[in-house]
Amino acid sequence: MTILPDGGLTLAALEEQALQPGTKGLPITQPLRQHMVGMQGWNVLDADTSFPVALLKTSSLLHNLDWMRSFCARFDAVLAPHGKTTMSPQLFGAQLANGAWGITLATAPQVLAAARFGVRRVLLANELVAPADLRALLALLRDDPGFELFVLADSPEGVRRLADAVTAAGLGRPLPVLVELGIAGKRSGCRSVEDALALARSIAASPGLQLAGIEGYEGLLVSADRAADLERVDAFLAQLADLARQLDAEGLFGGPRILLSAGGSAYFDLVARAFRGVDALSRPVLPVLRSGCYLTGDHGHYLQLTAELEAREGLAGGLRPALQVWSIVLSRPEPTLAILSMGKRDASYDLGLPLALLAHRPGQAGPLMLPDGARIEKMNDQHAYLRLPDGVDLRVGDLVGCGISHPCTTFDKWSVLLLVDDDYNVQRAINTLF
Amino acid sequence: MTILPDGGLTLAALEEQALQPGTKGLPITQPLRQHMVGMQGWNVLDADTSFPVALLKTSSLLHNLDWMRSFCARFDAVLAPHGKTTMSPQLFGAQLANGAWGITLATAPQVLAAARFGVRRVLLANELVAPADLRALLALLRDDPGFELFVLADSPEGVRRLADAVTAAGLGRPLPVLVELGIAGKRSGCRSVEDALALARSIAASPGLQLAGIEGYEGLLVSADRAADLERVDAFLAQLADLARQLDAEGLFGGPRILLSAGGSAYFDLVARAFRGVDALSRPVLPVLRSGCYLTGDHGHYLQLTAELEAREGLAGGLRPALQVWSIVLSRPEPTLAILSMGKRDASYDLGLPLALLAHRPGQAGPLMLPDGARIEKMNDQHAYLRLPDGVDLRVGDLVGCGISHPCTTFDKWSVLLLVDDDYNVQRAINTLF
Repeated sequence: MTILPDGGLTLAALEEQALQPGTKGLPITQPLRQHMVGMQGWNVLDADTSFPVALLKTSSLLHNLDWMRSFCARFDAVLAPHGKTTMSPQLFGAQLANGAWGITLATAPQVLAAARFGVRRVLLANELVAPADLRALLALLRDDPGFELFVLADSPEGVRRLADAVTAAGLGRPLPVLVELGIAGKRSGCRSVEDALALARSIAASPGLQLAGIEGYEGLLVSADRAADLERVDAFLAQLADLARQLDAEGLFGGPRILLSAGGSAYFDLVARAFRGVDALSRPVLPVLRSGCYLTGDHGHYLQLTAELEAREGLAGGLRPALQVWSIVLSRPEPTLAILSMGKRDASYDLGLPLALLAHRPGQAGPLMLPDGARIEKMNDQHAYLRLPDGVDLRVGDLVGCGISHPCTTFDKWSVLLLVDDDYNVQRAINTLF
Repeated sequence: MTILPDGGLTLAALEEQALQPGTKGLPITQPLRQHMVGMQGWNVLDADTSFPVALLKTSSLLHNLDWMRSFCARFDAVLAPHGKTTMSPQLFGAQLANGAWGITLATAPQVLAAARFGVRRVLLANELVAPADLRALLALLRDDPGFELFVLADSPEGVRRLADAVTAAGLGRPLPVLVELGIAGKRSGCRSVEDALALARSIAASPGLQLAGIEGYEGLLVSADRAADLERVDAFLAQLADLARQLDAEGLFGGPRILLSAGGSAYFDLVARAFRGVDALSRPVLPVLRSGCYLTGDHGHYLQLTAELEAREGLAGGLRPALQVWSIVLSRPEPTLAILSMGKRDASYDLGLPLALLAHRPGQAGPLMLPDGARIEKMNDQHAYLRLPDGVDLRVGDLVGCGISHPCTTFDKWSVLLLVDDDYNVQRAINTLF
């Protein structure tokens, strides 16, 4: 298993590009070709990098890739991991090389970016209504007959726009569309099976469109009452399964197989189980899971959710957090306060603040676990406030390693992240395309 | 007055670079040289762009540049606007062309990025302690004798690191250092005038360092009790002034003039007034304001704060919000709910959610003001939930223009923003360097 398979000319082009001074995390004063990053002998614990720096532990990435491949094999599902999480072409390449069926994305620019870097099959898990976005994606499909794109619809206007755009583009093949079923009070998607059925009929009847499957997103059902959440997830999945059966009974599906897609990073086991029960349809069913956060995990929100999933399923050796942001102590202005060189521009703060895990003094043994009472209590744009118990020996110039909560909103703050081995030796750089 | 003065070869190089398909906001399917953006005839209200798209109103930028130049002239201060807000080399160029004394920045990578694009004087309003960051900035100073950098210190360890790095780099000129005075319970900075005095003595005594001035950041004093805030700001500014007098009386300052720097975007009038009162020192005093948000403003947090400032000073024709994020209605799943193609990846959410201002149906007259009850009530990574009063005619495919709250955390979500005229014609693209 290789973390970074040959992704073709464009991934190679990234390795040839010169990283510029001023790229966050990189300690460079002159342009440096990206493939040279791993040859610099940088070690994060030796403070060779700039701080803050965003790191991915290679061993955890490899473990998680393997874990998910096994999971999908065991549960008879395929994976189109949500690429919006990382928007990293090298990580897309690693996911595809490790069995992913395709990449899920959220916006037209994300599809265009992924296509540039060799992704050949995309599930756009979103409505597509903006004229320029429609034109761009249909031009991509027209000019590259091997590129596959699946899109969602949840309204007659959305279907009309898709159909008109296909006609205008002169696309020589039907555009596969999934009906989105939603949840009352939540995000997009038809609010009833009846509405979804009517919409599916209009898709099936639209020249240029093909009803390829159905889609839902159960991941919005996260509340303080976890038992109730699970019941609601199961009820929603049952509704999706029921909708699939009804659409099939009406003969509305048009593709070679029926795509059933759901599955954020919290309940993909329940999704796989529910979809396994949808059989005896008129053509093969393809359950497509979409977890984006499994690859890097986190030390907060998703660590909790995946631990629950692993406990539900009795899965040992579970997913491992791979993403850390390291910063340096800039100031120790008060006995229980350290100011870190890491802020809202560097680490997630939307589903919990970063978790201060480790401290290290370059030149000494370590890193050491920070005591339990150490916690980030606030962030400004470029600073974090680390509150410490009395008497912690943390000095100006010491390094602090943080886990984060919600990988998506950390990835989008970095154009380059560094892959490290378990001793924090920098092995290579990867890019993001936000 | 020109919005984008000649910034030398490197700004020109940005205009020559090819923007790639997948760049957020741009409706391109083929690479497009940046200088061609304004010749495409794109109009946002005609839905020619991708959505979401981040816009800057040129007329507001020009107004704000002019407003701040007049303000500084009237209050006898110079401006080193905080560049971390936008990190846009074209906007840095516009600020410098409109009288800015230099650019303030927060991190070493920001300094390196700004220097690449022609910024020649930087106030690094932060401690500088990471070895690689010290090496990089001192290499920049050594290799470019005309580049000026001022840094902060608030600890003996910080001073030691600066002094050692200057020696190691063989810098042929002293490094100007400002003592940072802090506020109890707040961020970095010495917690007492006594500590600041001791630190100033050690800077003055360090070979290779020069005590260039003092610095503080009163902008952290924002609470629900505005009258108390103003008192605390004035008290802090008086403390800064007092510290300046004491350091001068001891003959510790080393440069040709004494820099006094404070001033976020909330109280820069009070700062200018307080610093104007510091005279009769042994050498000229240079009050350096640092507001970063004046240039683009916002429709939330800073609109409120600058309105208070303008009222305090009786300033008419005040700062104008220049930054908007436009998205498209993807879904209308419930009568009072619209789902927009804009999320946490596109618009600030840390000091208030975006403010839904305008709606527009391409091909019709408009845009129209959204009714008062329309408000963004939640965002996911790529979606916003717009809650509407009953009966609002907003359909799938309609455009929604939002103001934001806190420009810094919107700029860092875009690699390219579009400048538009008052009719939303796209005039050009500018870059950010996050």
